[in-house]
Amino acid sequence: MNISTKRTIWLHPEQTDCVQVLDQRVLPHQIQVVDLRTVAEVVAAIRNMTVRGAPLIGATAAFGVYFACKEAAQDDNPEAYFARSVQQLRESRPTAVNLFWALQQMEATLAPMLDFASKAPLALKTAISLVEADVEVCRGIGEQGLPILQAASKAKNGNTLNILTHCNAGRLGCIEWGTITAPIYMAFEQGMDLHVWVDETRPRNQGSSLTAWELSQAGIPHTVIVDNAGGHLMQHGMVDLVLVGADRVTRKGDTANKIGTYLKALAAHDNQTPFYVALPSTTIDWNIQDGLGEIPIEMRSPDEVRSIQGWDGTATRTVWLTPPNSPALNVGFDVTPARLITGFITERGVCAANESGLLSLFPEFQTV
Amino acid sequence: MNISTKRTIWLHPEQTDCVQVLDQRVLPHQIQVVDLRTVAEVVAAIRNMTVRGAPLIGATAAFGVYFACKEAAQDDNPEAYFARSVQQLRESRPTAVNLFWALQQMEATLAPMLDFASKAPLALKTAISLVEADVEVCRGIGEQGLPILQAASKAKNGNTLNILTHCNAGRLGCIEWGTITAPIYMAFEQGMDLHVWVDETRPRNQGSSLTAWELSQAGIPHTVIVDNAGGHLMQHGMVDLVLVGADRVTRKGDTANKIGTYLKALAAHDNQTPFYVALPSTTIDWNIQDGLGEIPIEMRSPDEVRSIQGWDGTATRTVWLTPPNSPALNVGFDVTPARLITGFITERGVCAANESGLLSLFPEFQTV
Repeated sequence: MNISTKRTIWLHPEQTDCVQVLDQRVLPHQIQVVDLRTVAEVVAAIRNMTVRGAPLIGATAAFGVYFACKEAAQDDNPEAYFARSVQQLRESRPTAVNLFWALQQMEATLAPMLDFASKAPLALKTAISLVEADVEVCRGIGEQGLPILQAASKAKNGNTLNILTHCNAGRLGCIEWGTITAPIYMAFEQGMDLHVWVDETRPRNQGSSLTAWELSQAGIPHTVIVDNAGGHLMQHGMVDLVLVGADRVTRKGDTANKIGTYLKALAAHDNQTPFYVALPSTTIDWNIQDGLGEIPIEMRSPDEVRSIQGWDGTATRTVWLTPPNSPALNVGFDVTPARLITGFITERGVCAANESGLLSLFPEFQTV
Repeated sequence: MNISTKRTIWLHPEQTDCVQVLDQRVLPHQIQVVDLRTVAEVVAAIRNMTVRGAPLIGATAAFGVYFACKEAAQDDNPEAYFARSVQQLRESRPTAVNLFWALQQMEATLAPMLDFASKAPLALKTAISLVEADVEVCRGIGEQGLPILQAASKAKNGNTLNILTHCNAGRLGCIEWGTITAPIYMAFEQGMDLHVWVDETRPRNQGSSLTAWELSQAGIPHTVIVDNAGGHLMQHGMVDLVLVGADRVTRKGDTANKIGTYLKALAAHDNQTPFYVALPSTTIDWNIQDGLGEIPIEMRSPDEVRSIQGWDGTATRTVWLTPPNSPALNVGFDVTPARLITGFITERGVCAANESGLLSLFPEFQTV
């Protein structure tokens, strides 16, 4: 097994029954590893965003099912304990569909086994295979997306290709490679002259803290901008391509992603800037059509808006931004209508952002 | 003279030759007053955003001209000293046109006087009259804009009218009343059931620190949101009206305002949400047509993006957000094309966002 510290989640190298993750709440200023050993710890890590990003949430939850099997085996009522645990995992975050997909995969695999003592090793094996599969899927997204970047770079006639992204759909949101970063890493390794505009992505600043960090680790030229700036850059021809991830994509192509994605899609549309969504096919929710009406949008704590966390020179510190008596609203995601999306980059290929486009790559979902 | 501490700039009540301003860099957590006594202090206060907002920048610069007269009178070469001082004031911020307008007013008034000792009292008198005029202009914007809010409120059939705003075009950006807040304050005083969504407005957070503060001081219901959230709220019918200020409006109606305004205008357009710009006519630059090509956009320090200032419980503190080696770009303003603007609210009335609309209210600018 090849889970190394270059990944976002891995088995503890010395201790059994312990999964380790990079604590994404303290990046980029501190690199801290968190041990996960129980269902409760996994639920908390997903909920408090120690881990985040649709694919990584799914992978972490899969290990949570392994812990659920082990804990259930010790309980007087193992079936009820297990069901309750899976339910807690399912309710840890509402928007990204990969979480539910991973839990379904785990449950389907474990269903035939009768006792939880024997389910546990199978759960561990399955979780590991989901992790390995995510790595391959992201590599596939990279290979499928690379030609888009190559064509866009060629059209620049020797000038730098400027890509804008929102939030973190990088390796930190996955296991390795990332979704939007996979083609970027591959293009950069091939020597492409590229530069990434990194949206800060308030309120949790996944762009300025995570995407900027992983790009700087890889030596990829990038510049952090506030979320307000992308439209201006597009108006002035400073963005050649927008590349974002997804938390849930409907059958018709409507795309839930980090709050603010819709605004960038509008600006891309207004300036004829190509706007691509990179996603593993596990992000597609084949059961729903209308993104605005059917995708549940997570509401998070207003304090994430009212305050911010940063490095004061010696420690990570929270400072308060708003007047003490001003309320705030914290909407986690928005939905970009399919009409604003140039195309989807999946592990099986690139397609139009509509039902027939998606079905051309995934014909097995013709009927669900 | 009625400049009180309820205003943003006033004469020191006891000391001559001293103008006082509210330090807008430490709001909402601290209320500090800064004394301005020299041209250098006025230039610094505008540049470092102790004062900000197009009308207030103009008013502060007018007092700077008064100090320039006084200092010039003491200099060996008063003409050169004065010219240099006015030039420094002119270069303190590049985008808002009110600054240049105020300086022109001052220069035109002072031109006939020969010696700087006699120019000084006239400069003070003129600066005070510009301040008083701004108050009246904002009151006029309020009276002209009020019917728009009344009609929108009526259409809500007893439900709360939801207004979204970006940055601070409130009384803190002016002398009193504000531009977009003038009709809001008037409507609220009349008992209208209204609520304001306040965009945080990164990087300097004028929304969460200034607009939220002045609305909370006035008891007006409001909620702070991150800049990413407005599109989602409009998609879900949670915004009835967008109301923003302006730093410079071209003859054709293109509008420079705080970075990110363009993104909100796109979302408003996509959701058929009325999008109004409130402005004193001094914000109109009758000499230019094309906003994108002709309005100079201020580039500010990248550190305003890489860091943020907030209250840590005992003091205002700066924390760092980005990896130490990640560069940032800080674009101060963007241009919203006239086609996305429902109308302008000026002190003379409401008009369409185009040249004939503007000229219908200001026929004296038919030829410039």
